[in-house]
Amino acid sequence: MVYRVGILGLKGHQGVVLNSIPKIDDVVLSAVADDSEEALMRIKKHPAVTSDTKFYRNISELLEEEKIDIACVSGTDGERAHVLLECMNRGIHVLSEKPLTMTLDELSMVKEAYNSSGVVLSMLLTMRFSPSYRKIREVVTSGIIGEVCLANAQKSYKLGDRPEWQKSHKTFSSTLAFIGIHPVDLIRWCTGREFTEVMAYQSNVGHPEAHDMEDNAVMILKMDNGGSACVHLDYCRPMKAATHGDDLLRIAGNQGVIETFEQGSRVRLITHERKAEELTLDEPMDEFLNFVNAIKGLEKCEVPAEDCFRVTEIVLKARESSETGQPIKL
Amino acid sequence: MVYRVGILGLKGHQGVVLNSIPKIDDVVLSAVADDSEEALMRIKKHPAVTSDTKFYRNISELLEEEKIDIACVSGTDGERAHVLLECMNRGIHVLSEKPLTMTLDELSMVKEAYNSSGVVLSMLLTMRFSPSYRKIREVVTSGIIGEVCLANAQKSYKLGDRPEWQKSHKTFSSTLAFIGIHPVDLIRWCTGREFTEVMAYQSNVGHPEAHDMEDNAVMILKMDNGGSACVHLDYCRPMKAATHGDDLLRIAGNQGVIETFEQGSRVRLITHERKAEELTLDEPMDEFLNFVNAIKGLEKCEVPAEDCFRVTEIVLKARESSETGQPIKL
Repeated sequence: MVYRVGILGLKGHQGVVLNSIPKIDDVVLSAVADDSEEALMRIKKHPAVTSDTKFYRNISELLEEEKIDIACVSGTDGERAHVLLECMNRGIHVLSEKPLTMTLDELSMVKEAYNSSGVVLSMLLTMRFSPSYRKIREVVTSGIIGEVCLANAQKSYKLGDRPEWQKSHKTFSSTLAFIGIHPVDLIRWCTGREFTEVMAYQSNVGHPEAHDMEDNAVMILKMDNGGSACVHLDYCRPMKAATHGDDLLRIAGNQGVIETFEQGSRVRLITHERKAEELTLDEPMDEFLNFVNAIKGLEKCEVPAEDCFRVTEIVLKARESSETGQPIKL
Repeated sequence: MVYRVGILGLKGHQGVVLNSIPKIDDVVLSAVADDSEEALMRIKKHPAVTSDTKFYRNISELLEEEKIDIACVSGTDGERAHVLLECMNRGIHVLSEKPLTMTLDELSMVKEAYNSSGVVLSMLLTMRFSPSYRKIREVVTSGIIGEVCLANAQKSYKLGDRPEWQKSHKTFSSTLAFIGIHPVDLIRWCTGREFTEVMAYQSNVGHPEAHDMEDNAVMILKMDNGGSACVHLDYCRPMKAATHGDDLLRIAGNQGVIETFEQGSRVRLITHERKAEELTLDEPMDEFLNFVNAIKGLEKCEVPAEDCFRVTEIVLKARESSETGQPIKL
């Protein structure tokens, strides 16, 4: 069979899917929807687009008119739960932006719809496919750094001109949820440890032009072995910085420390036995190819649905903590 | 006059005082006390020691026998409050290890004794005298990075063979208080911002040989402008690492980011207008010389008593938060 793909929104990492489609034989781009005519115009030049690709200004309309097998759900945070439910109810496999939903209630509804749908659901946790973090996971799960005691991570982004939807909490899930989900996921995935509690703060102090969007966010998490994690996020990266983002992940165990450097692009390991050494990284993996192969039953999905539900739950509870001022059990 | 110095304990940063004494004309080392004969033997070779320097196995005995003007209080955390009170009551100026006390009740007592004593009180917050942090403070307080949105700091130390007193909470104030006080102080001092709330976790996960000493600790703090800070501490630095400690301080404002690199030894600034540049650092300052000059009224004390009280209060409340599992107002 040929898998027909629909891109439901051009506001996220849909590039992962678009760029991968031309490399996969039995996948075609059937349709694209976005409320911006300009965004649709830009996409029309993409190699994934064929003369058969349809364009819509409305996601529901696309779903009504087109028969698609795979949806890339890449619109605003606010509309995501609704779009996911529409896809689930139609039996469409979903690769979604994150977080999955804006509220825990929505998350329950999506989980229920998923459980009775039989579809493959995954999330664009793109960092899992980057060589640095795959290497860190490989080393930590091999036991080289021993028992994990502490993990910390940073995401620092340039603010730039944010799209309107990110400036309102009606459509934006908050900085803790929107970008915090990456480090929360990476720490959990790389260490194999579960989190048991979270406490967080976030606010917008210095960027009134970004309105509701928080320019700073911090959270601490307790691990199930008693260890701890801490994450800090900001949109304060200066315009003159060499890269858009300044990512960092560091995991300290009782036998060694492994950490990224140069904005997350390189990895360094130090142990009690061996001095600091830079590790050789493998090639990046193609997330969409993995997703399609998971649908076909050829590979296991690298970002399984249970992880999507769990990390969404964690960051929504982190946001809740920042609102209530109380730690939340996980 | 000649200032007679007593070293009350050889379990901390007394080296700051000992190494400075030979460089100051009107200061002499009168006496040294420690319960370890071995530690006293080692110190006897130090250039600060003269034929007149007396040695004691007991701090109270030293205070009874000797008339000293300045005390370096550098014993265990557990005995500190008591020794501080003995010094205050005798009108002896005090340069103390940190935190000042083990409990908030003790802190109140010390504060009261200080207020009626007329002595100069300071704390061995040695990092304030390091060129990196002085530069960061200078840049941040000048306004170059704009409004401070987020600050984060790391201390990672090699565990090594810890002294017995650090392995029990009867004599050790916890990792959050003992080393956490440095980053808490640096963030507060460099940004000029006050903290309004703290939430923290700490535990010993991977080093049973260290008993009560925590190998991991994290805290998040809210700033009085709504910004946030996050600190992570560990004793997981591998034995083969190039330096004993791996310190980091980073402050992100709405106009730029300033941060240390290479274990806190170098400083980098990036702003919206200027690419990343390494800043030239000044020479380190001599903490004990500043303290003596403050006693003489020649300089303001770089670590004034009110800061000693405040940062001790903050880290003791951070420890309380880790015990109660609740955020604590500051």
